[in-house]
Amino acid sequence: MVQTAPLVRMAELEIDPAQLDAYRTLLAEEIEASVASEPGVLALSAVAAKDDPARLTILEIYADQAAYEAHLRTPHFRKYKALTAEMVRSLRLVEMTPVALRAKSGALDWP
Amino acid sequence: MVQTAPLVRMAELEIDPAQLDAYRTLLAEEIEASVASEPGVLALSAVAAKDDPARLTILEIYADQAAYEAHLRTPHFRKYKALTAEMVRSLRLVEMTPVALRAKSGALDWP
Repeated sequence: MVQTAPLVRMAELEIDPAQLDAYRTLLAEEIEASVASEPGVLALSAVAAKDDPARLTILEIYADQAAYEAHLRTPHFRKYKALTAEMVRSLRLVEMTPVALRAKSGALDWP
Repeated sequence: MVQTAPLVRMAELEIDPAQLDAYRTLLAEEIEASVASEPGVLALSAVAAKDDPARLTILEIYADQAAYEAHLRTPHFRKYKALTAEMVRSLRLVEMTPVALRAKSGALDWP
């Protein structure tokens, strides 16, 4: 159980449609590596609008500010940022606070 | 591990600021009951904008359409809808598809 409020950010992205498949692959790799290898990355949920698949939302949940800053310095995050820089048309980061977060153990594991 | 793509919805809500504390309590109760008691409710993440706490986003992840429909018929969801009806100024539901979903086991457990 998390004892202090986790740090939550929401990223809203618009991706170049011509590069969407490549972007999705790089994002999925980055998310898998981050949650698997970083103790302070609690959850990353990337979803796309059904009627506009180039518009993505990523809900990012970190244990705390230090975990978020450590995440930005990891090789897998830096690789993702470098390789996707020309794919992202716009990026909006919104700072959030958690109201209620619940997931079944092992249930967020896609693909 | 989820074998088929889960059903994902994003709810964007604006709550009456005067009733925000009461709304947050009812929402947190509903989320806890849903994930604890419904096999097909995989995760519910409710967050508020840091600079505008009356604006909430809920990322809802269900095993499939049947799980979502079953959720709508539960006593705890019906209670939540009835008691919060006059608290919600606007509600926008957006159908999403998952790109990548990962969480550490047991990490989404707030508050």
